[in-house]
Amino acid sequence: MAKSSKATQKGGSAVSPLAPKAFPKLPPLAGVRLSTTAAGVRYAQRTDVLLALLAPGTQVAGVFTTSRTASAPVLWCQANLKGGEANNRQARVLVVNSGNANAFTGRIGQEGVRAIAEEAAAVARCRASEVFMASTGVIGEPLPEQKIVKVLSRLVGEGAAGNWRAAADAIMTTDTYAKGATATAMIDGVKVTINGIAKGSGMIAPDMATMLSFVFTDANLPASVLQECLSAGVGPSFNSITVDSDTSTSDTLMLFATAKGGKHTAIAKASDKKLTEFRRALDGVLLDLALQVVKDGEGAHKLVRIEVSGAETDAAAKRIGMSIANSPLVKTAIAAGDANWGRVVMAVGKAGEAADRDKLKISFGNHVVAEKGMRAAKYSEAAATKAVSGREVVIAVDIGLGQGKARVWTCDLTHAYIDINGSYRS
Amino acid sequence: MAKSSKATQKGGSAVSPLAPKAFPKLPPLAGVRLSTTAAGVRYAQRTDVLLALLAPGTQVAGVFTTSRTASAPVLWCQANLKGGEANNRQARVLVVNSGNANAFTGRIGQEGVRAIAEEAAAVARCRASEVFMASTGVIGEPLPEQKIVKVLSRLVGEGAAGNWRAAADAIMTTDTYAKGATATAMIDGVKVTINGIAKGSGMIAPDMATMLSFVFTDANLPASVLQECLSAGVGPSFNSITVDSDTSTSDTLMLFATAKGGKHTAIAKASDKKLTEFRRALDGVLLDLALQVVKDGEGAHKLVRIEVSGAETDAAAKRIGMSIANSPLVKTAIAAGDANWGRVVMAVGKAGEAADRDKLKISFGNHVVAEKGMRAAKYSEAAATKAVSGREVVIAVDIGLGQGKARVWTCDLTHAYIDINGSYRS
Repeated sequence: MAKSSKATQKGGSAVSPLAPKAFPKLPPLAGVRLSTTAAGVRYAQRTDVLLALLAPGTQVAGVFTTSRTASAPVLWCQANLKGGEANNRQARVLVVNSGNANAFTGRIGQEGVRAIAEEAAAVARCRASEVFMASTGVIGEPLPEQKIVKVLSRLVGEGAAGNWRAAADAIMTTDTYAKGATATAMIDGVKVTINGIAKGSGMIAPDMATMLSFVFTDANLPASVLQECLSAGVGPSFNSITVDSDTSTSDTLMLFATAKGGKHTAIAKASDKKLTEFRRALDGVLLDLALQVVKDGEGAHKLVRIEVSGAETDAAAKRIGMSIANSPLVKTAIAAGDANWGRVVMAVGKAGEAADRDKLKISFGNHVVAEKGMRAAKYSEAAATKAVSGREVVIAVDIGLGQGKARVWTCDLTHAYIDINGSYRS
Repeated sequence: MAKSSKATQKGGSAVSPLAPKAFPKLPPLAGVRLSTTAAGVRYAQRTDVLLALLAPGTQVAGVFTTSRTASAPVLWCQANLKGGEANNRQARVLVVNSGNANAFTGRIGQEGVRAIAEEAAAVARCRASEVFMASTGVIGEPLPEQKIVKVLSRLVGEGAAGNWRAAADAIMTTDTYAKGATATAMIDGVKVTINGIAKGSGMIAPDMATMLSFVFTDANLPASVLQECLSAGVGPSFNSITVDSDTSTSDTLMLFATAKGGKHTAIAKASDKKLTEFRRALDGVLLDLALQVVKDGEGAHKLVRIEVSGAETDAAAKRIGMSIANSPLVKTAIAAGDANWGRVVMAVGKAGEAADRDKLKISFGNHVVAEKGMRAAKYSEAAATKAVSGREVVIAVDIGLGQGKARVWTCDLTHAYIDINGSYRS
């Protein structure tokens, strides 16, 4: 995620009331060594560079922002992935910095990326094409890449396998808490582990990708299988959340497989039934991380889940869900605890998808608020208000025309969003 | 415009700092008599019903919301227009109420519209199909149509030709000031007058139409010519503004021609060169009214004009302009006086239209802030900040790829927007 605003990590902002109670216990993962440092890219007195050293042969897959003004590190990663063979794309180093997105920084930005990749390759003894990168922070400021280049040698030597919390901390910008998730799965009788970290809080409307999120597994899976699992998993997770409808220049989601866990059967296809449990676990990690991002939406006090059914197609349902999730009028009403279902009607109406006033049915929680073209006969203001008063709000919309379904998540729109994004960049 | 929130006309809100100094002097218009009253539809102690009595033979044209959940009066007007002959669509009465949008009110809402139309037809001695209507206010509340029905007879008798300010007052909801505009034009040597009023402040992202706006002329023009002039004029005016990206269920823009001014040549086609000046004057009135709406955007303190050039097509330029105009991150930065051009880059990137980082050029006011894929060589933070510090901000974006152009307007996003829309409906 690239934000072009603040100098400090939400200086003084309280932790989101939707934050998990604690950072989860991510176990060490064979083949991954993590180290972080305070390189002074932009922030003072906090870590801002993460280096993940990956075992030789580690396979990699990625999905990225669809922005036409994608950042220099996004373009670098895409070129690396395109250069490899589909079922043998290798990664040895991941370098992530916060504080500067290296987006819209022109030729200088590209040269900075290359300088970092070449130094990382030299100290890790690999090819520059095996170095992946991500940057998050201010857009348009030249990246002080030498600050990063000069810490890489030390970071390569300092890596530890269990450093997940520190890794999640180093990549935060306006985040109010570090985001991690873990799961295990059996592949043909052998246990494998999946660990993931993410960051993101504003400029969140991922489009075919996400903020920054990095997922690692010790399973032995070729890049082509990883890519298929990741591309399928991103749809109902990161691509189903929105904080503010603004899609970042830097969205990056990568999946690395070190093959250093227990030995299991070779897997050549993502559709292999032996991968069913792994894919379910991976999808769970992706959704967990995506929900942690939306729960840390800038200024968020409520998590809103929108369930759309009965649309003409799943894609239509998704567009209707996003129309509701991105409506500032719906989001300000929920912030105020106002069961303002008329605004949901408006958002369905403007989505550009087929809808029929008289077939539409809207519920807040379990309470039906509107149906048959008007307010529900048994509508209760008290019940509707109660349904939008808690930390988690569910809005269900049945279009009544077909079988299309979607589930999307957003947060409420509060004064804190204005405060955070109206603060000056300096 | 239909808002589903507030009981009073922005109770206690100050007048927008962008408001015109005074309501313009709209002259009496031959063939139009206006009257208003406080019918108690929802608001206390203010007028909330407007009746315009139109001379026999008045021709009418309209454009309406594209929402799939359009209000009952919108559906009524559309049916009336569809029922008439293209070059002889007549209107005798316009009834507008504020306080209740009569949207998503089902069969009861349709019956309410019919009851009002039949009573208006009876007291004005015309056909129900010559009665046009618009409602604005809460969505989903049944319209208390009898409160309106019972005042119609009196309003028909009370009409005055010069009552434009009172008419503009009666149709406001969250508006902080009444909106009107006037112009004159010569048609083949004969002077004609155009008067318009509008309302709208939030739920403003008109799509093929606008909030509520009614424009009247004493020219002698058939409905088909009016419709063509109106459909052409709405694109660069009402369809080029956005307050909050939320498209109303009730957007209505109508144009009435009474033919009661000076006698001029018959005009059969909108392309007739004798209409050039009239069309320019009409376009000016439409743009004036549209800008008055965006200047009264909920919570607005700044008017932002976005000039897009060099896109592949005009449509692409419009989508890029709207992507910038609807970005909450751009709008909060402008509210704070932050020349955060990186967010403009982001909004161009997410628009889904062709863009090339290295060809993009962005200016704030006259100051070039970004070009050649990075911050401009002569960038000055002081000059950029000055350009976003006044009441009116101009952002110019040259995509550098083609000849497509668009100009759109929006306002900044401030705490007041959250206050206004987080207040409870009751």
